[in-house]
Amino acid sequence: MLLVTFSSDDNEDRLGVQLDNEVVDVGALASARHATVPATLLEAVRMGGDGIAALLSDPVPGAFRRPIKDVTLRAPLRPGKVIGVGLNYTEHVAESARTLDTDKELPQRPVLFSKPATAVVGPGEPIQHNGDLTAQLDWECELAVVIGRTAKRVPAESAMRHVFGYSIVNDISARDQRRSGQWFYSKGQDSFAPFGPAIRTADDVGDPYALELSLRVNGEVKQKSSTKYMLFRIPELIADITAGMTLEPGDVIATGSPAGVGASFTPPQYLKPGDVVEATVQNIGTLRNPVVDAR
Amino acid sequence: MLLVTFSSDDNEDRLGVQLDNEVVDVGALASARHATVPATLLEAVRMGGDGIAALLSDPVPGAFRRPIKDVTLRAPLRPGKVIGVGLNYTEHVAESARTLDTDKELPQRPVLFSKPATAVVGPGEPIQHNGDLTAQLDWECELAVVIGRTAKRVPAESAMRHVFGYSIVNDISARDQRRSGQWFYSKGQDSFAPFGPAIRTADDVGDPYALELSLRVNGEVKQKSSTKYMLFRIPELIADITAGMTLEPGDVIATGSPAGVGASFTPPQYLKPGDVVEATVQNIGTLRNPVVDAR
Repeated sequence: MLLVTFSSDDNEDRLGVQLDNEVVDVGALASARHATVPATLLEAVRMGGDGIAALLSDPVPGAFRRPIKDVTLRAPLRPGKVIGVGLNYTEHVAESARTLDTDKELPQRPVLFSKPATAVVGPGEPIQHNGDLTAQLDWECELAVVIGRTAKRVPAESAMRHVFGYSIVNDISARDQRRSGQWFYSKGQDSFAPFGPAIRTADDVGDPYALELSLRVNGEVKQKSSTKYMLFRIPELIADITAGMTLEPGDVIATGSPAGVGASFTPPQYLKPGDVVEATVQNIGTLRNPVVDAR
Repeated sequence: MLLVTFSSDDNEDRLGVQLDNEVVDVGALASARHATVPATLLEAVRMGGDGIAALLSDPVPGAFRRPIKDVTLRAPLRPGKVIGVGLNYTEHVAESARTLDTDKELPQRPVLFSKPATAVVGPGEPIQHNGDLTAQLDWECELAVVIGRTAKRVPAESAMRHVFGYSIVNDISARDQRRSGQWFYSKGQDSFAPFGPAIRTADDVGDPYALELSLRVNGEVKQKSSTKYMLFRIPELIADITAGMTLEPGDVIATGSPAGVGASFTPPQYLKPGDVVEATVQNIGTLRNPVVDAR
């Protein structure tokens, strides 16, 4: 299932299931069928998606479907925390060492950082470019893992049971706002975590290490890779993180960026107001965000 | 006012006001007086404390007071985010450069990092020492600023209007769990943000730059300083953070540690199971946590 959070005329966020080019209004359909389903996507993550799947096993009348172009997709949910994984694709480790003062060697343990919930925006929402703060606003297309069940000291062998599904995070950085090497402020500002457009449930995504990733700026391809090049894979990430840190339902792991970030070009290419960034992950969708002048 | 979250026999977290050695059960008192007050300390932060102050302006009958030793104090609230400020006391900048590979120079901008909400524990709750992960578990006594009103691009001049009150965070680090220099995992693990025991409202704390800070391990003084030595003061911190990042009610800024962390001793002194750490900030209280073996 491809789950979305959408709003339409009434402006209230609703839980939807995307079927081709339509969105099913899950709450309305459940009411009509006297069924109980989660009211929000975060609730669906907490409760599991079985009730929704059951509801959709019968044909859905047209009254409960809306063309996707007629609704506004929102960030799927507000995560408790977004944990980023730095330097998790070989070629990106090399380009970062060349241009961003990071280590040349492959990391021995996952390089973890975080973005706060206030950094999250949904599809279509602007990425804020504040020229007073940065001249180096950069992109990173990443497969996002959405945690479904609380995970604490989970061994790699059983880690995948804690995954609800997958989405996309565009890990935006103001490269010149690192502070004593810390990435939190450079990666954690408002709008620096575009998230969405949907969450594909884990049972439906196929092999998570066979997904194409790509990112375009104004239609021009900047990143093109595959999750097969991920250094630390999802079970290792969950085992490593939860050795010390509890993951809760709705928490998101942004699993790292392949090569092709703006800093790696000669000369570097950074985002500017008016640009449009599209991050695509196979089987999930395209997360499209304009860059706006936020001075 | 000194606000606490407490539980007693019924185990439910309740909002309290500490008066000397007693805690007033705010909800019970309000019910008896047919008044409406916030049900939790987080709600009080969101709504402001005026209603509670009004309720307490008349004498509080004994039935609504409990000796503080008979209740369990909890973490005051669960913050959306905890932003830490590194290297914010001159002598700590020097000791860190000597022992932790940080810059010798005073930072030009606040050095920001974060701890997730899952790191927060309350007074009396254990700090988890996992010997499989760390041999360098360290302490840092810090004045915590609790945000009251949403703050976005707030200039220093009006920043203090967004402060609800003050508390204590003990910024626990596993010094050997930095990853490519990132502090998130080393400072963000479960139980690495002891928080409390109370929140003193801003109107009641006096000069926030004249508060003694001290920390003891097993009764022995390790840190002793004053907030007057803070490098970036609270209005500058709020202005700097909110230039890029929205602060929400209940968010916490841990304003940095004075000298005397474990890493600075020769040889270094680190926490071990069985230790008891007490962090004291004048006018707020003492945050006491045992260290337990969590292997």
